[in-house]
Amino acid sequence: MYSVINRVRPAHRALAFALRFNANTEGSSCVVTDGRRLSPGVSADVDPLRATSRRFCSRTALTQGLLFRQMFELESSTYTYLLADTQTKEAVIIDPVLETIDRDLKFIQQLGLKLKVAVNTHCHADHITSTGLMKKRLVGLKSAISKFSGASADIHLSEGDKITFGKQYLTVRETPGHTDGCVTLVLGDQSMAFTGDALLIRGCGRTDFQQGCAKTLYQSIHQKIFTLPDECLIYPAHDYLGRTVSTVGEERKFNPRLTKSLEEFVGIMNNLNLPKPKKIDISVPANLVCGVQDI
Amino acid sequence: MYSVINRVRPAHRALAFALRFNANTEGSSCVVTDGRRLSPGVSADVDPLRATSRRFCSRTALTQGLLFRQMFELESSTYTYLLADTQTKEAVIIDPVLETIDRDLKFIQQLGLKLKVAVNTHCHADHITSTGLMKKRLVGLKSAISKFSGASADIHLSEGDKITFGKQYLTVRETPGHTDGCVTLVLGDQSMAFTGDALLIRGCGRTDFQQGCAKTLYQSIHQKIFTLPDECLIYPAHDYLGRTVSTVGEERKFNPRLTKSLEEFVGIMNNLNLPKPKKIDISVPANLVCGVQDI
Repeated sequence: MYSVINRVRPAHRALAFALRFNANTEGSSCVVTDGRRLSPGVSADVDPLRATSRRFCSRTALTQGLLFRQMFELESSTYTYLLADTQTKEAVIIDPVLETIDRDLKFIQQLGLKLKVAVNTHCHADHITSTGLMKKRLVGLKSAISKFSGASADIHLSEGDKITFGKQYLTVRETPGHTDGCVTLVLGDQSMAFTGDALLIRGCGRTDFQQGCAKTLYQSIHQKIFTLPDECLIYPAHDYLGRTVSTVGEERKFNPRLTKSLEEFVGIMNNLNLPKPKKIDISVPANLVCGVQDI
Repeated sequence: MYSVINRVRPAHRALAFALRFNANTEGSSCVVTDGRRLSPGVSADVDPLRATSRRFCSRTALTQGLLFRQMFELESSTYTYLLADTQTKEAVIIDPVLETIDRDLKFIQQLGLKLKVAVNTHCHADHITSTGLMKKRLVGLKSAISKFSGASADIHLSEGDKITFGKQYLTVRETPGHTDGCVTLVLGDQSMAFTGDALLIRGCGRTDFQQGCAKTLYQSIHQKIFTLPDECLIYPAHDYLGRTVSTVGEERKFNPRLTKSLEEFVGIMNNLNLPKPKKIDISVPANLVCGVQDI
């Protein structure tokens, strides 16, 4: 196991197993997490403005020594995130895309970063990851993805794992439902969460292919993401309307799908009638081996 | 004059006139601003990583009570910015686009904001502003643009003007060169600058139409933007490669055009041979009247 990964705490592991175990059973029973009872279908009593703003500043301020960049790939509307420790210059990239590898490597070079880990939040169906090619260009770079993804990588992530870079770290929360191998990566101080295709801004990932399960996704979001602080910034893998960020508080209050009951949510998700992703037949096989390249 | 605008300090006005006066004369003499001597063509001795990261956090933290959202319009690759005071909920929107008016108004409504001013950094040639239509939908909203833009608006901005929203404010710095009426809007604590089409990430606005002048643009950026703190975040009106933010320190060190001498810069800008913007013939006339609608 690569040294950047610290293993999971037993309590988190238990929660992960509970979630996974419950994922395909009926019912929408609440789960108590971090002392808070979740009530699916009932939006939180939260002032999203207050949550987003003052706390945005103060929480961000707590993340001393963090460099953060959000980047966008236009064809697939994918967000790539670059995070680094400013002291050690160790860095992590989340969901890098093949088409934008040169842009990303140029940033890394200009900012003098040492990229340690390229992590995918899941096995993407809409674009090919640049992880494999990036590994060929950057000596020592490790790839990481959920152990439930079915994809090959240097590091297979599990609930509670920590991906460290300098004094910073991301904690893995398993959030299956869009795929079996979806994870949400939470910054150490819980000021930011990278939710992949689980929770999107005012939306969520589809659940009609690649082991998708609406009920599992609903439970993942309520138990693993909505239990984060209201002021935690939500950075998804995609947005198709040019929105860049949200907060847990906002999504708990305004997400048109996740504010519904489990049953309503499942009904919505099972009737989206979306077209098949254009690139799925080439993206998924490629991403199962870290992008078309050898890892 | 609308109450959100506070008039300019004499020193700033003098600098603005000096810049404008010098804009079309020869030579690249340095201007001393804020105690720093600018040396065109010589990149700054700055660690961009350090500038971007630790100071990113601490500077952002100084902006207590600020809500900030960056939004993207896909067709014209335009960034729209929403800023609000979290106490009073007064807000300002920068460069809103006609195609995304519903998205922007929904954010404003959900977050409970009172939009006071819609400001355009200049008279855009690549898209139509939503300012006029937004004024029809939001009672009391005022439009603002540079007095040198030639465009009609409720507020005509000049160097040093302050656009206040609650305890927050943006200060106007005139940065002509892309057009005569380009301004850069600087947050009160100088942690963020909204540079419009003057300074882009690793680039700058073109200077081959709409009163464009390469020399003027070069001087604007060096005298009005590169004199901001290295850690000041740069938020441009566009990016075509999916980059969302930069810093003054980074652009002083890595901007491939602005790190050149004035003469080299003018040579580059005069030989870009770019195609005419697709929408210029409809956008400019519309934007001269605040977007196709009456103001």
